[in-house]
Amino acid sequence: MLHFDSDYMEGAHPELMRRLMETNLEQTSGYGTDSYTLEAKRLIVEACGMPQAKVHFLVGGTQTNATVIDGLLARHEGVLAADTAHINVHEAGAIEASGHKVLALPQHQGKVSPETVKNYIADFYRDETYEHMVAPGMLYISHPTEYGTLYSLDELEALSRICREADIPLYMDGARLGYALTADGTDVTLADIARLCDVFYIGGTKVGALFGEAVVVTRPGLLPHFFPLVKQHGALLAKGRLLGVQFETLFTDNLYLRIARHAVDMAMLLKKAFVERGYKMYIDSLTNQQFFCLPNEDLDRLSQYATFELWGARGKTDTVVRFVTSWATRKEDVEHFISYL
Amino acid sequence: MLHFDSDYMEGAHPELMRRLMETNLEQTSGYGTDSYTLEAKRLIVEACGMPQAKVHFLVGGTQTNATVIDGLLARHEGVLAADTAHINVHEAGAIEASGHKVLALPQHQGKVSPETVKNYIADFYRDETYEHMVAPGMLYISHPTEYGTLYSLDELEALSRICREADIPLYMDGARLGYALTADGTDVTLADIARLCDVFYIGGTKVGALFGEAVVVTRPGLLPHFFPLVKQHGALLAKGRLLGVQFETLFTDNLYLRIARHAVDMAMLLKKAFVERGYKMYIDSLTNQQFFCLPNEDLDRLSQYATFELWGARGKTDTVVRFVTSWATRKEDVEHFISYL
Amino acid sequence: MLHFDSDYMEGAHPELMRRLMETNLEQTSGYGTDSYTLEAKRLIVEACGMPQAKVHFLVGGTQTNATVIDGLLARHEGVLAADTAHINVHEAGAIEASGHKVLALPQHQGKVSPETVKNYIADFYRDETYEHMVAPGMLYISHPTEYGTLYSLDELEALSRICREADIPLYMDGARLGYALTADGTDVTLADIARLCDVFYIGGTKVGALFGEAVVVTRPGLLPHFFPLVKQHGALLAKGRLLGVQFETLFTDNLYLRIARHAVDMAMLLKKAFVERGYKMYIDSLTNQQFFCLPNEDLDRLSQYATFELWGARGKTDTVVRFVTSWATRKEDVEHFISYL
Amino acid sequence: MLHFDSDYMEGAHPELMRRLMETNLEQTSGYGTDSYTLEAKRLIVEACGMPQAKVHFLVGGTQTNATVIDGLLARHEGVLAADTAHINVHEAGAIEASGHKVLALPQHQGKVSPETVKNYIADFYRDETYEHMVAPGMLYISHPTEYGTLYSLDELEALSRICREADIPLYMDGARLGYALTADGTDVTLADIARLCDVFYIGGTKVGALFGEAVVVTRPGLLPHFFPLVKQHGALLAKGRLLGVQFETLFTDNLYLRIARHAVDMAMLLKKAFVERGYKMYIDSLTNQQFFCLPNEDLDRLSQYATFELWGARGKTDTVVRFVTSWATRKEDVEHFISYL
Repeated sequence: MLHFDSDYMEGAHPELMRRLMETNLEQTSGYGTDSYTLEAKRLIVEACGMPQAKVHFLVGGTQTNATVIDGLLARHEGVLAADTAHINVHEAGAIEASGHKVLALPQHQGKVSPETVKNYIADFYRDETYEHMVAPGMLYISHPTEYGTLYSLDELEALSRICREADIPLYMDGARLGYALTADGTDVTLADIARLCDVFYIGGTKVGALFGEAVVVTRPGLLPHFFPLVKQHGALLAKGRLLGVQFETLFTDNLYLRIARHAVDMAMLLKKAFVERGYKMYIDSLTNQQFFCLPNEDLDRLSQYATFELWGARGKTDTVVRFVTSWATRKEDVEHFISYL
Repeated sequence: MLHFDSDYMEGAHPELMRRLMETNLEQTSGYGTDSYTLEAKRLIVEACGMPQAKVHFLVGGTQTNATVIDGLLARHEGVLAADTAHINVHEAGAIEASGHKVLALPQHQGKVSPETVKNYIADFYRDETYEHMVAPGMLYISHPTEYGTLYSLDELEALSRICREADIPLYMDGARLGYALTADGTDVTLADIARLCDVFYIGGTKVGALFGEAVVVTRPGLLPHFFPLVKQHGALLAKGRLLGVQFETLFTDNLYLRIARHAVDMAMLLKKAFVERGYKMYIDSLTNQQFFCLPNEDLDRLSQYATFELWGARGKTDTVVRFVTSWATRKEDVEHFISYL
Repeated sequence: MLHFDSDYMEGAHPELMRRLMETNLEQTSGYGTDSYTLEAKRLIVEACGMPQAKVHFLVGGTQTNATVIDGLLARHEGVLAADTAHINVHEAGAIEASGHKVLALPQHQGKVSPETVKNYIADFYRDETYEHMVAPGMLYISHPTEYGTLYSLDELEALSRICREADIPLYMDGARLGYALTADGTDVTLADIARLCDVFYIGGTKVGALFGEAVVVTRPGLLPHFFPLVKQHGALLAKGRLLGVQFETLFTDNLYLRIARHAVDMAMLLKKAFVERGYKMYIDSLTNQQFFCLPNEDLDRLSQYATFELWGARGKTDTVVRFVTSWATRKEDVEHFISYL
Repeated sequence: MLHFDSDYMEGAHPELMRRLMETNLEQTSGYGTDSYTLEAKRLIVEACGMPQAKVHFLVGGTQTNATVIDGLLARHEGVLAADTAHINVHEAGAIEASGHKVLALPQHQGKVSPETVKNYIADFYRDETYEHMVAPGMLYISHPTEYGTLYSLDELEALSRICREADIPLYMDGARLGYALTADGTDVTLADIARLCDVFYIGGTKVGALFGEAVVVTRPGLLPHFFPLVKQHGALLAKGRLLGVQFETLFTDNLYLRIARHAVDMAMLLKKAFVERGYKMYIDSLTNQQFFCLPNEDLDRLSQYATFELWGARGKTDTVVRFVTSWATRKEDVEHFISYL
């Protein structure tokens, strides 16, 4: 059986495992005060081309979102996000559990448009009763989105400008950031993201690490007491060097982008095969998640050979499905699967 | 200048003030343990025709919603509500501040349909990832809604049945309940509400009291440790007898319904006058809130004589406005205003 | 039966009731935007002698503490307070419910000493693991304390200096502030409090009002978005003018202090009588709460004529009791009670 | 330089690393639904001798405490714990951040006595105002405690009985449980703990794992919706099988206890050496944390050769220090250190 369910089905990239093994019996201080962590931070700051940026390592995505958002918002503020955003749908209420409302915005294929954000903020402050309502205190976007789509540089510039005019931080959830940065046709670089977002994270869990997310704070003074907040959110890893070692390895010799690019290549292979055989794309995704509308008979047939996710409920005649590749996807497996199409 | 802005512009009905004066220098124990409170509870239970019901008095609506919802939900649950619901829009995030997500549902004129609720719950548990999402833990409805509309008995029966099948409480926000119970054409009585809802509140602030809301718990065993929760939410009035005296008075000689009916009469007078002069109703409300589409020139002219709320932003040519009557609205003032129409 | 249980057994001072009656049918806008509220704020600012102070009215004490403390603390901070503080004992966990730890300090008769506070803060930052601990983010004191005791001006100056050096706000719970300001032998004035505290509240519930507390913010820029926070905490009264009318009256013709002084006089009468008859004071309180150690036989005998609180559990031979007077206590009742001593 | 700072200075026991390597490229489903996790749960249930027990894996200790306690407590309840408890001191307010008060109890060397707990509960419900206070909703103990001390079976039986009589769960923080179970002189077995506690966790982070804690729920029906709560707390590991593989390995061939026993042996070696040389034990600990009072000149001298923690502030002449051993401590290092004593 072949598996295209998600991008976190394996452990870590072998190079990370090798480094974890090599350093396993070294003794270091805890909580991210070790030299591996310092070096990993240095490498990430360098990759972002932003010397004043601060980097923090957390363990997982939901945890990172909850901690960062809690740190950025005042009590009376909420977070603007696409109604399809991970924080609005698939984090079991973690944002609300720390006291904040997700202000859900209409979206297209997972993306919120600059106009939508701009109008929301303008309408909010135009409403005479706005002090009875939850103020938009920050904007959350994911890149790639939950639908595998990408913001263009123009869109990102516009969102950033709107946020700065409104004096609210722009935060990017980069759980799959590697797959965005290496997609064909994207015009957004890591340096652009560092320049345009106030906070973002570089996802490790879904891009080669056992676990781990690197939060980058680009605006000096934001998240001033982040360490105790991380601890309070249960997001502080005792053996912090495990995050340091992994991210140091990922950001050495361009490994992060190289393995991400492999996943994108595999996704494009799949996409090409589906399209050539006349299947309809549900979304034209450039990244490692691919969505197709399959006739149910094809769905059932392919399910004999591979696992993948239904995207929503099974339809009467056709069903939307999601195929996900990763740094670990083997080309022979993709080709093998294509042979069944 | 005449005022139709809201139903909480005056103090209390004179009969309540008289009783507060009469009892002012009596000494009673605090926190609702006094005899006025006990008697008020007895009268409300009697009015509901439900001997096993428990009654609790709180001070205001947002506070009541936050406390009740916090008491009804488990940590992993959220509250289903119309996206226009007061708790979703105008409570400054009070529900989220106590850790719970408002699961916003599409609505029509402020009402959620039984089908919408039923489908939401069914779809939720059909989703394989539902344990990553916020579970629907209760249903919140307002009656009248924020748009002055009313549920029919059939609709309420259906909502109640769906909730009981799903084993989640049905909670009614009755901030303006008097105006619902006395509307022409409603087929829903207080006894129906007590029978069909698990918890609801009878609004005092907007129906004759200085302040105060009477929470009625009809399902035994719900909200088992409500007193400390009320205290924790800052909703416990030290001089609890002020609530007792007011509600005792409201539920003596049918005062609550009599004064509510007056407001409805005044609203109908207004509505008839607007309609007769050819103005368009925005919503055909049977209760004390009336919504009209006014040409902007009429809006500006009428604003010279009376205050009332714009419902949303001013339009290019026409604007939706809200007129509110109350137990205190004087017939001569309504007639005076109509003379300007 | 005579009653010395608490200072909130009656309604409001008759002058407040008279004004509430007079203004009852006036129509005003809600939520504290009315002219009575504005005038009450002006009078309080004037009484404090601090033109830049901001005043906000809330309904009750626990609510006020929870809202103010939530507004003053960052997420990683807690509130320093005597272990006997109302917020640590008798608010049903309201502070923790909004996410903050009460950092309990040893106290003497309800008062924390400047040394205790200073050492706590110094020790905290000396601890190498302090980022794993809850940072002291503000200091809460009550004046009078829960034991009726008072801070001297020297003590208050010292506490204020320590807080300013540590850059944390000093907040005073003045639920019974009137009784502190009018005690014989106090050298602390309202102007001192305004000068030395960053935020404090002037209690109405226990000093002549039906309900209501006036929060005074003396440091510009503190509590910047207080209105939505008040709403979120369920502490916003719809008919805000009820608070305005009451506090306007209390701060006209010195009423607040006059009626508080009466309570102190009555307490001193009681104290003198107990002491003259050889009973032991448990605490030498200068305010309206008096604590005595009574032999159980006297306790039982006096309980036939009056109600009062046991302060802690009944002892084997002697028991500590609390007698409370208020603005409403009648001299003939005190004398009547003394005749039974 | 030798290191005795903590028991989480290395990575994982080599056998765990070997298994993580072996399974690294296998594809499994996420979030703990894989077969390694199922097998690890089976082994732990078997080790506990309690077939009805449920096991859940989380990442770290603070996270585990916050999630479990949040799941066990009702809103109006707090958690009883020693004032020295990790949750009261070193978790940055994580318990309060999820809304609950830590009800701090006096302790001796980190242990709360059954009498203390019993009296607290009895006094609480004897207090007439108890509904204004935070109810004791569960008891938290750590075993070993933060001071390395252990409960005896008698003490644990008594605490369990008191909790069951009061109908509140007993929860044990077993961050270092292995070191407790293998201490000389302990009469408490894993089966005893499973029988007497309602929930406890078996610490992995400090006993051989990269990270990971195994929560064991022994009372059926407790923590009914734990999965979404874990997710909400940011404690759900995407690649859950990492926890499964590690705990499967730890609970195969008795590895967990074998490596824990090694740490205890190393600690006893240290202790014997200190005592033989006439140093004073600060606490007579049977587990892997050892506390001594060192003259400052010895402290300074030994600091040239090894790192270890000061336990509190440096004293004028003597200072309390903590030495920690672990599964990874090498005998030759201990002997080397002893040669400097």
